[in-house]
Amino acid sequence: MTPSLADARALDAADPLGPMRARFALPAGVVYLDGNSLGALPAATPARVAAVVAEQWGRDLIGSWNVHDWIGAAARVGARIAPLIGAAPHEVVVADSTSVNLFKLIAAAMAARPGRMTILSEAGNFPTDLYVADGVASMLPHARVRLAQADDIAAVVDEDTAVVVLTHVHYKSGRMLDMAALTRAAQAAGALVLWDLSHSVGAVPVALNACGADLAVGCGYKYLNGGPGAPAFLFVAERHQATLRSPLSGWMGHAAPFAFTDEYRPAPGIDRFQCGTPSILGLAALEEGVAMFEDVSFADLVAKSRALTALWIDCVEQRSAGHGFALASPRDPAARGSHVSFAHPDAYPICRALIARGVIGDFRAPDVLRMGFTPLYTSFEDVWCAGDILADVMATGAWDHPEYRTRAAVT
Amino acid sequence: MTPSLADARALDAADPLGPMRARFALPAGVVYLDGNSLGALPAATPARVAAVVAEQWGRDLIGSWNVHDWIGAAARVGARIAPLIGAAPHEVVVADSTSVNLFKLIAAAMAARPGRMTILSEAGNFPTDLYVADGVASMLPHARVRLAQADDIAAVVDEDTAVVVLTHVHYKSGRMLDMAALTRAAQAAGALVLWDLSHSVGAVPVALNACGADLAVGCGYKYLNGGPGAPAFLFVAERHQATLRSPLSGWMGHAAPFAFTDEYRPAPGIDRFQCGTPSILGLAALEEGVAMFEDVSFADLVAKSRALTALWIDCVEQRSAGHGFALASPRDPAARGSHVSFAHPDAYPICRALIARGVIGDFRAPDVLRMGFTPLYTSFEDVWCAGDILADVMATGAWDHPEYRTRAAVT
Repeated sequence: MTPSLADARALDAADPLGPMRARFALPAGVVYLDGNSLGALPAATPARVAAVVAEQWGRDLIGSWNVHDWIGAAARVGARIAPLIGAAPHEVVVADSTSVNLFKLIAAAMAARPGRMTILSEAGNFPTDLYVADGVASMLPHARVRLAQADDIAAVVDEDTAVVVLTHVHYKSGRMLDMAALTRAAQAAGALVLWDLSHSVGAVPVALNACGADLAVGCGYKYLNGGPGAPAFLFVAERHQATLRSPLSGWMGHAAPFAFTDEYRPAPGIDRFQCGTPSILGLAALEEGVAMFEDVSFADLVAKSRALTALWIDCVEQRSAGHGFALASPRDPAARGSHVSFAHPDAYPICRALIARGVIGDFRAPDVLRMGFTPLYTSFEDVWCAGDILADVMATGAWDHPEYRTRAAVT
Repeated sequence: MTPSLADARALDAADPLGPMRARFALPAGVVYLDGNSLGALPAATPARVAAVVAEQWGRDLIGSWNVHDWIGAAARVGARIAPLIGAAPHEVVVADSTSVNLFKLIAAAMAARPGRMTILSEAGNFPTDLYVADGVASMLPHARVRLAQADDIAAVVDEDTAVVVLTHVHYKSGRMLDMAALTRAAQAAGALVLWDLSHSVGAVPVALNACGADLAVGCGYKYLNGGPGAPAFLFVAERHQATLRSPLSGWMGHAAPFAFTDEYRPAPGIDRFQCGTPSILGLAALEEGVAMFEDVSFADLVAKSRALTALWIDCVEQRSAGHGFALASPRDPAARGSHVSFAHPDAYPICRALIARGVIGDFRAPDVLRMGFTPLYTSFEDVWCAGDILADVMATGAWDHPEYRTRAAVT
């Protein structure tokens, strides 16, 4: 039976993460279920960003690189992300975008496996992962990108595979891959594995080192709440740091950037995977988002993610039964991330109708209504209300309006 | 004869750009001559950034991509930079860092000149330009980076040269290369030319299209006052846009990023040179910096740059005569950028002593004291005061103190 509003409120009252919601600046009258696309604003972030702008940039100017340790920010914030992904602090650095970091690490992996010409990935992986793999391959004679279904990856990885590029939690289905098993299979064939953690970090358990992972990248603006276009991060296992080299050899990855020598000499550790000057405003906002995880139990976070997603599935399947929704995410909570997708032929106008009523989710082509549940701030009451509004939108046919069929630039 | 303080004040009173200084949040008691490293904070920027954080990200959340046109920001700010560099609005886009943009365009140029294996650059060019050229070459069999002295570039460009990578105004000497002549010479040999405008844009005349330039990149945090680690920009001449492709083929460069197809199809115009999700905070701050140029005459800006740099040379050579300073920048104002370097064996402690007295310039290894003059906010009185303080530091030997010899992380 679907929980009642009172049941949802009781779950909130018992939620150990409940107090965290007040530490976000959530707009009134909105049920925000799109934190997997753009995380909400931490309440502490405006003051932090304002201080960096006025007191650091404005007042201390260039001296801030030393006085406020701007030069160490990329490594410092990376180290704070490390515990969320089962990495050591010196194995993670914040830099550039997820796309740029994918390029760095795919290219570095290809160079580390000479003679192997295949980049293997999942068909239907997040587009930028596939596009960037193509971009790396376009520079290397004889290199190719091979796509396989997720369940076939372990079987098709072979002696020509240099690197396997996989997204841990699928951006659309929310399916979580078995990181340990796939890492073992790829390594058994002599390949490296690069995990994209964009839809995992901050919401589901990630244990890079326990799984023996080689490389990873991830996004700063989803569950880490780092703000729009926040800098991304990358992980290189300690055992690979001395040998792997990024072809994006910008000066911030140099062992001595301020020696201004003509020859590139990569920094000894993770810093070699930096490239140009990092965004200091972006790093400050991201650090606020990341810092909040230090005040919660990760086990609580994961348990809540599973409970929220399960509640949403119940709400849709029971309250909107008979309206054509088909679950497009794993039913087993341990096999999915913190978002849930339902396929529906009218997913686009339904999504727009929900937005018009203050329930913010998103549409993913061609037919998916996707809702993300951020354990730090999503409440059980949010989920219940979204289910209630969806039921009404479907029962009344309110979604079937020409205005809701008009496509926006960003969907 | 060196101008007196009264003379400097008279120059300020007659300066058509004088009122612009009040539109920057300059700290009291500081003479800031390092805007070529990190531009000062525009007074309008804190409120703009705060609004993007609180009202756009915080309140409108994911909807801001459409409602506040985040999706168009990279092209919009690029178009506003275009007039400063003699480009058409649709030839410039803001993206990533200068280093990442160098990689995109060097790699694209190499692919556009198959069979040519040389990337030609200037020995002593800004390090990241050389490092990134090396990085591109490391991925391409038989490719190589060849360095020549600036005056030899036109003579050594040959039928193996795919691309010539040159910095318009040298980061250390301030020497300005002849963009028209070098572009002609490179193109006559069948090569493309990529200009790094980091030390030019916003301070000296740049006429990319009048010079027939092919490609360019530039920095957002120097004379454009976009803030620490501001996003950079890139230029691709219209005639090359349909054929050149960036191997950094992230989803934001796709013709239809939200179609989520497995195959990469580059956007038709300059947008194909975007990669991942851009920093929205960084773009907002950069746009404020760029917008200020729309309120001034560029001819006034250039005239003031030349007058400020000339005054500084006079101040050092006359007020600190006999103290070992050797001008390391061109004496002809039309042949230099908006910064001036003096070589001195004790440049490092002298620089630190000046900073201790509120005159902020910088040191560039091994022996250069470099001062940058931003026409939008540097006053002639600033320059006079810096010269006066330098004269005192030299006359009293105040610079010769152990504390000033200790190297900081960032110099």
